[in-house]
Parts: sequence; C-alpha cells; structure tokens
Amino acid sequence: MTEIANLTDFREILTGMPGPDAKALAGAKDRNSQLTKPPGALGQLEDLAIWYAGWRGNARPVLTAPQVIIFAGNHGVTAQGVSAFPAEVTAQMVANFTHGGAAINQLAKANGAKLDVHALELDRPTADFSQGPAMDEAELVAALNTGWAAVDGDADLLVVGEMGIGNTTSAAAICLALFGGEAADWTGRGTGVDDAGLALKTGVVEMALAANPDREPLQVLRCLGGRELAAMAGAIMRARVLRIPVLLDGFICTAAAAVLEKAQSGALDHTVAGHVSAEGAHGILLERLGKQPLLSLGMRLGEGSGGTMAIGVLKSAVGCHSGMSTFAEAGVATG
Amino acid sequence: MTEIANLTDFREILTGMPGPDAKALAGAKDRNSQLTKPPGALGQLEDLAIWYAGWRGNARPVLTAPQVIIFAGNHGVTAQGVSAFPAEVTAQMVANFTHGGAAINQLAKANGAKLDVHALELDRPTADFSQGPAMDEAELVAALNTGWAAVDGDADLLVVGEMGIGNTTSAAAICLALFGGEAADWTGRGTGVDDAGLALKTGVVEMALAANPDREPLQVLRCLGGRELAAMAGAIMRARVLRIPVLLDGFICTAAAAVLEKAQSGALDHTVAGHVSAEGAHGILLERLGKQPLLSLGMRLGEGSGGTMAIGVLKSAVGCHSGMSTFAEAGVATG
Repeated sequence: MTEIANLTDFREILTGMPGPDAKALAGAKDRNSQLTKPPGALGQLEDLAIWYAGWRGNARPVLTAPQVIIFAGNHGVTAQGVSAFPAEVTAQMVANFTHGGAAINQLAKANGAKLDVHALELDRPTADFSQGPAMDEAELVAALNTGWAAVDGDADLLVVGEMGIGNTTSAAAICLALFGGEAADWTGRGTGVDDAGLALKTGVVEMALAANPDREPLQVLRCLGGRELAAMAGAIMRARVLRIPVLLDGFICTAAAAVLEKAQSGALDHTVAGHVSAEGAHGILLERLGKQPLLSLGMRLGEGSGGTMAIGVLKSAVGCHSGMSTFAEAGVATG
Repeated sequence: MTEIANLTDFREILTGMPGPDAKALAGAKDRNSQLTKPPGALGQLEDLAIWYAGWRGNARPVLTAPQVIIFAGNHGVTAQGVSAFPAEVTAQMVANFTHGGAAINQLAKANGAKLDVHALELDRPTADFSQGPAMDEAELVAALNTGWAAVDGDADLLVVGEMGIGNTTSAAAICLALFGGEAADWTGRGTGVDDAGLALKTGVVEMALAANPDREPLQVLRCLGGRELAAMAGAIMRARVLRIPVLLDGFICTAAAAVLEKAQSGALDHTVAGHVSAEGAHGILLERLGKQPLLSLGMRLGEGSGGTMAIGVLKSAVGCHSGMSTFAEAGVATG
C-alpha cells in the first residue's frame, strides 16, 4: 500500500490499525522487574521502555534509527494578520533547515536523529479558512500522502514537526471544532503576537468555525487544517501501520494528531507526548488526549523541537531496559 | 592546589570561589537574541546555554566532554534497619557499575558521558550517626579530597552521583539539620521501605539530630554525612574552581550540595538541578535552594541517573546556541 487514494481509504486504514505485540509487552514487563534497581526507581523510563518494546514487537529492543520529519505549509489565513511574522518566513525557514542553521538541525544532531524536510506547495497557500474550507478533498488527500510517503520503513522512531506561519491559528480552530469550548481557550501568542493580535486571532478562529460547520474529524482537518498538519497526520498513521512509535511535538503537531484520535479512538496509542509547550492550549489538549508529556522546558518553537528533545529520553529508557543486568546476572541481593 | 589539608583550607576555597565570566555571559545573551527563532521560543534551553557560556568563559561554547562520577560509601546507620536493601548491596552495585550492568552505565552511554566510579572504604562504614558523629575531621577531609581529586581537569560538564545503602537517611538528617522542620518532612521511602520502615527511619533521623547538636554546615556533613556525600561536595567545589558547570542529581546529591550553599551563599551558582526525583523531600530541597529542575520523570534511583539524563538536555541547549544561524546569516525576516 503506497498511496491513499481517497478519504474512504484513509478511514479504512484508521479502523484496521495494528495494536502492540502482547508477547513482547509481557516479556518487557518481566524483564523490567528483574533489572538491578529498586522496583519503579526509573519512573517513567520504565513505562516508556515497555511501551516501546510492545510496538516494536521485541521484549529487548534497540533504538538506533530515529527519523524527524518537518512538513512546511503556507496558510491563506495569514491575510487576516494572525501572526507576528510575515508568511515569507515559512520558505525562508525551510531554506534554513536545508542549510543546517535552524534549532531543529542542532537538536536532531544532538539527539542522533535523521532529519528530513518536506515543503508542501509553499507558493500555493491553503484558502483562508476564516472565509470557507482551507482545502478541497483532493488537496487534503495529497497532503496526507506526502506524510504517508515520507516515513522511512526502517526507522525505529518517528518525530513529526512543522513550519508554517499562521499554523497556531489552524491548530486552535481544529481544537475548537474537535473539543468545543470557547475560541479563547485554544488561542495563544504563537510566535509572539501582542494582546491586540491575540484578540484578532481569537476572532478569526470564531469566524473560521462559523464558516466551516462540518465537525466530522477528517472534514475538520480539511476545512481548518493546513497541508503540513495533514501531512503530519498521514505520517503518524503510516508509522502506526509500520509499528514505528511516535513522539508528538507541540500544539500544532498534537492538534493534527487529535484529528486521528477523534476519528478513531486508540489511533494515538503508538504515540507519546514528547513535551508540553509554552503555548498554553497544548497542555489542555494533552489532558484531553490523556497524554502525559515527557518534558516541560517552556519551549514553543515547533519544528519538531520538543519531540526531538524527547528522543534522548526514550533512548535512555530503552538503553536501560535492554542494556542493564538482572539481579541474577549481576549477583546483587534483591532486598 | 591538589589536596585539601584540613577544613580550614576547604572553608578558604569556599570563600574565594570564581564567578561566571561577565563578558562571555553578555556575548551569549547577545548571540541568543539573534538566532533564527522567535524570542524565548527555546524556553529553558536559552537560559541554560547562557549559563553554560558564562561558566565556560566562551560566548559560543561547545559541550563535548561530560564526566559522570559515582561515589560509593557504607553507613553505620544501616544497623538501625533504615533500608529495604542489605548493606552488602553497595559493594555489589559497585561491581555492577564496573561490569557495565547498571542503569548509570546505559545512561552515561546514551548521553555520551565518561563514567568514573570511586568506592570509599566500603569495608569501613561510617559510624552510626544515630549514636554520635559519622566521621571525625580526618575522615571527612579524606572523603572531600577523594571528590576533589576525581574531577577531570579537561571535563566540560560534571555530574556527581552516589551509591550507598542507607544514604537517604543521611541526606534527610543533613536537610533537617540545615533547614529545620520536622524529621518527617525530609524522610521518604528511599529504595522502598514500607510504612513501618519509614516510621523507624524518621525516628532514627530524630535520634541523629539529638546525638549531633552542631549545626555549622561542614560539621553537619561530618556528623550526619557519609563518605560519598562528602566526596560529592568536594567534587562540586573542585568543579567550581575549574569553572566546570555541574548538573545535580537527586535528593542525596542535592543534600550534599546544600551543605556548600549553607556554608557559603552562591556556592551552587555553577550548578543546575538535573531533575527532581520521586523521593518527596527532593522537590522541597530544590525549592529551598531556588533551583528549578530540568526533568521530572519520576526517577528515584540515585547513581547520578537524573543528572546524567539532563546531560542530553544541556547538550541540546548548547548545540542550538552555538550551532544555529542568526537571522542575518540565514536571510530570515525578523517579523
């Protein structure tokens, strides 16, 4: 299966997803209980390693080939003045990624990950969703396919991130459509709008919801998303099919992921929240999804930066799980 | 200066500590403001990199040679039944470190750090401090010197950790002596004592305070410490003299460090809390010291494990700071 033909196909994939390997899960739990440490002393690292083992189908897995993918897209809604940066910055930052000068380049290097960048039709922004749907179905499916095709089959961990001036507005609109509440619950300062900018952004989100009444999750993604959000959703689903665990990044990545969970409960079971960002709505969104973040470092950059930081945590967890001696092997008394 | 002759010498070192390099600090702040990201978007990573630059005396530093040192010691107070594990486990775990089978071996590897282990007279436990002083002055000075001498001069980051059955009792007693409150405020389950064990441990800490009335910080370390705690304090001070930044580990490491801060305000300015452990008193202790932890992963293992996890975070921070392009270099609009 190399391409998603249409939304019906994508829905079928969502309803037929594989689960974790029960035998590997049980084996990993058993191994964890024998390692030379007091029970539970590695805290979240223990649960992480067991989760990873289940998805990899190996009670003693290794983690050597993490892939980070950044998807970039442009948004017609920037015409409303919702961002502190001009839309040209999307393409400028893609060039910065390509030349190795952005934060994510350094973070991928520091955490031993491969970095890929996919720019999605930057010269053809999505339609302004404050006036009507951002994309038609063909555009949505094309973006899903970009994500679907971007995942390396031999990766053993995936982080998806994004670049797209205006995309916190898209994420806020998606969250409001999926979870309800008030527009102000989901809007924040993004790259740094002031009070007036935040009020304007909140109003634009309200307009977007009024202009796009369909609340079916994949239609929400089509109407209020951007290409980079749809691509992230496509990549997360491809990872599921390939049993590649995923570390979620910040607010925009998690909003794209939330579409999948709302469309099919359990669709995010192969994902862990890499961090909680300083964009306030991200913490609320993670709570709604029942996801506890690994890191909380006040980051709010996007680019997959928070998810990539968490690769180091997961490598440490898997390294302990698979590398440590058991009490019997080490001749240590069990207390 | 290769050895501390006596406590008077050590006090002199404490009062004559170097500070960060003001020019490097200013240069690092200026550089941070020009990097291709919205202002503040890297959150705590930005402050961390600037802090590191100041101590290294380089506005654009690298971090390539982190050293992790574990000090191990045995405690006479284990005769009171304060631990869930027998005292023999200290030596057994030192053997496990040497053979590469412990959590810290995997964590040092995953985070690219050199690991050294120093066992301090394991066959000669400190005296039971519930009855009187744990060490005499010569023993304290010898342990401080072990730490002092263990730091690599060419390390560019230090993590100190410990192994010592019974040493959460020592750390609790030190905190009670330094900060006051009730014994129960500072005692926890350590490696896993039950309710009765915790009550016994709390009573032992009360006995220890009564048996050791001196509240001068270095005397508190002598009377209530263990050799591995004193060695950690010696290493943290040596790092300060060498301008090597330090990531603190959990409750026991931080208790040893707190002795220095209480003896001389500012003694821990070259340190950052690597994590907050699940041993409840650690969070309280960090608050008293004004330290915000980088990680909170529910770990409570010791061995330098939490501090070593944080090496990855600091490497990422320094990598972004020194590796990213500026807006001018990358041709990105500043908004």
